[in-house]
Amino acid sequence: MPIITLLTDFGLEDEYVGVMKGVILSINPSAKIVDISHQVNPQNLMQAALIVQSAYPYFPSGTIHVVVVDPGVGGGRDILVVEAGKQRFVAPDNGVLSLLLERQDPVSVTLIQNPGYYLKPVSRTFHGRDIFAPVAAHMSNGIDLKQLGPPADPDKIFHLHVPRSQISNTGELLGEIVAIDHFGNLMTNIDEDRLESFCPQRNQDKVLVGLEKCQITGISSSYDRAAPNMPLAIIGSRGYLEIAVNKDNAEKYFSANIGDTVRLKLPD
Amino acid sequence: MPIITLLTDFGLEDEYVGVMKGVILSINPSAKIVDISHQVNPQNLMQAALIVQSAYPYFPSGTIHVVVVDPGVGGGRDILVVEAGKQRFVAPDNGVLSLLLERQDPVSVTLIQNPGYYLKPVSRTFHGRDIFAPVAAHMSNGIDLKQLGPPADPDKIFHLHVPRSQISNTGELLGEIVAIDHFGNLMTNIDEDRLESFCPQRNQDKVLVGLEKCQITGISSSYDRAAPNMPLAIIGSRGYLEIAVNKDNAEKYFSANIGDTVRLKLPD
Amino acid sequence: MPIITLLTDFGLEDEYVGVMKGVILSINPSAKIVDISHQVNPQNLMQAALIVQSAYPYFPSGTIHVVVVDPGVGGGRDILVVEAGKQRFVAPDNGVLSLLLERQDPVSVTLIQNPGYYLKPVSRTFHGRDIFAPVAAHMSNGIDLKQLGPPADPDKIFHLHVPRSQISNTGELLGEIVAIDHFGNLMTNIDEDRLESFCPQRNQDKVLVGLEKCQITGISSSYDRAAPNMPLAIIGSRGYLEIAVNKDNAEKYFSANIGDTVRLKLPD
Repeated sequence: MPIITLLTDFGLEDEYVGVMKGVILSINPSAKIVDISHQVNPQNLMQAALIVQSAYPYFPSGTIHVVVVDPGVGGGRDILVVEAGKQRFVAPDNGVLSLLLERQDPVSVTLIQNPGYYLKPVSRTFHGRDIFAPVAAHMSNGIDLKQLGPPADPDKIFHLHVPRSQISNTGELLGEIVAIDHFGNLMTNIDEDRLESFCPQRNQDKVLVGLEKCQITGISSSYDRAAPNMPLAIIGSRGYLEIAVNKDNAEKYFSANIGDTVRLKLPD
Repeated sequence: MPIITLLTDFGLEDEYVGVMKGVILSINPSAKIVDISHQVNPQNLMQAALIVQSAYPYFPSGTIHVVVVDPGVGGGRDILVVEAGKQRFVAPDNGVLSLLLERQDPVSVTLIQNPGYYLKPVSRTFHGRDIFAPVAAHMSNGIDLKQLGPPADPDKIFHLHVPRSQISNTGELLGEIVAIDHFGNLMTNIDEDRLESFCPQRNQDKVLVGLEKCQITGISSSYDRAAPNMPLAIIGSRGYLEIAVNKDNAEKYFSANIGDTVRLKLPD
Repeated sequence: MPIITLLTDFGLEDEYVGVMKGVILSINPSAKIVDISHQVNPQNLMQAALIVQSAYPYFPSGTIHVVVVDPGVGGGRDILVVEAGKQRFVAPDNGVLSLLLERQDPVSVTLIQNPGYYLKPVSRTFHGRDIFAPVAAHMSNGIDLKQLGPPADPDKIFHLHVPRSQISNTGELLGEIVAIDHFGNLMTNIDEDRLESFCPQRNQDKVLVGLEKCQITGISSSYDRAAPNMPLAIIGSRGYLEIAVNKDNAEKYFSANIGDTVRLKLPD
């Protein structure tokens, strides 16, 4: 029995998430539903894309991931089922699968167009309930993806603009903060491989990591390599360079924002 | 196996919700539990009543809905099991089922009075754990409602005062904001039928919707019929007229509050 | 099939909790997972210890409780499996099990040291995903605890400093606020037995409970024994004396903080 995961910006105050589960369980009473997050900032596609990319590798083959961060609900945007990495993703074609698709070539892309699998009447504002949830439930019951609609061209999936790290004229590696987590850890767009190619691991204890006016020396192997309340750089759980403060909150410590530049400099 | 849903004002910081689930699973290890919301504002009965009414139609027959928004816990208020719409509702007799009961005549009402189905000792402050959860679990195990206590008179169930829309002297339809959701959408007490009888659908693109000093023209069929950051009126997912702002937050845009008047005027 | 509960300070914004569930279900697809809370204040060990102590008695024998409030992640702290009260607890050795262990002598303590049950590679920052979740899932599949690592000395488990209530020179019972819940109720460290031995139940309606400059007379049997918006003292659902405000928030009413002194005085 496949797992169905839910990732939305619906929050937890209203009945929206519970109602999606009611719809799913009405169609497939033995569905196993797992919440990824419902606290994506409203309509924040990049935040959702980062979460999708970071979460899916930890789920078994066959999992159905439903992503409803959908500012275009009721408008002309398509809804897709993407097969990739032995899992399936149901999402609006608005870029929330961008980062996943950089890592995984899609095996198939299907346009959801068959109202036979929708709840009726379809509302103008809540396709999570009326389209995404029932379609995912029917998929978990084993329907053929062809029944949902025609195939789509993988090359035409909408992609978000993803900021890339780059080497400056002076030889620094320039990245930026792309996410800030619950603990205030600052996640950059510099992944482990990029760091390694800029500065091999044996020298990483000497690399200089600059943020605003502060400079951190070396990549730490754990938070407590820094004194309490002192900043450090570390490879975080998503596989990217993060800036943290031991036993404290880096977002507040640095008054940091998404988009802030992070500069890496080789030791002299 | 029936689903048990939980709707409370307990928040998610403390162990309260998890403990209710532990109690349920101790009595019925195969119970399927779905959270509706635990972030009802403390003791806000109208908010809970709106959520109950909006959520239950999406659950299968036989579902047991547990509502613990219960400012009178430990006092003299009764606890009821109401059968309605092929589902069952366990709730204090304080009005949280008011709106549901406007739509669904109850098939039966039972007073919960049999301590044989309670956790012991019953605390003074947490009947969610000591009465609601174990009673719901025993119900999911199939006990006869008669074992819980005597029947009660459906006409004596406590009802909240529900504000109604009305026609003014000048022929306007006056409603009010009764809820504001996570996205800042402003839900009114004007439902689809009321709107239709005031202004038939063919003219709804010309009806004037006034809130404070702002006037919106027409009912939109989707959020993106308004330009980004511009307000619109739309029938929301609960079946009521809502005021929203495309890709933004109407609560902040209008500095709106629950109770604010919404005026609908026919085009000249 | 044992239940696995999760208690963390991960919050619900990010994918962290969902990912732990993905890991568990990848190893044991029929695991039943219950959230206790994910909104422990970051790295607040005492808050987590109070929640563990308050939650576990409501779960069936055999339940596996996973506690990941872990400021020392990636450093030298041990990870333990403690058997106590017919349940099992997986937690860092940092004091989060302190209060539980005051009530329950451990049957066994095991050091988790066998990487054969970890996810690989083990990250530097997210042992919830890489160690706690897979170990708990393997435990739910029935592995022998001996396979996880060597036994540890129960007397060497790290204990938090727990503030105790005491009798003052003037014969008052002095306690303090140790937790504040979602409703703003102020939980003290004076439990029901301590209160009874200070003032037998027949006189509890006359005992004086002082907080800051306010004095409350008597222990109430329900919130509504006080007038609306008036303070009261009551034995809360955790079995400790709490200070509440009927239909309102005691934290705001008193501008109270954790650590504030609560003074009980016998009637003259």
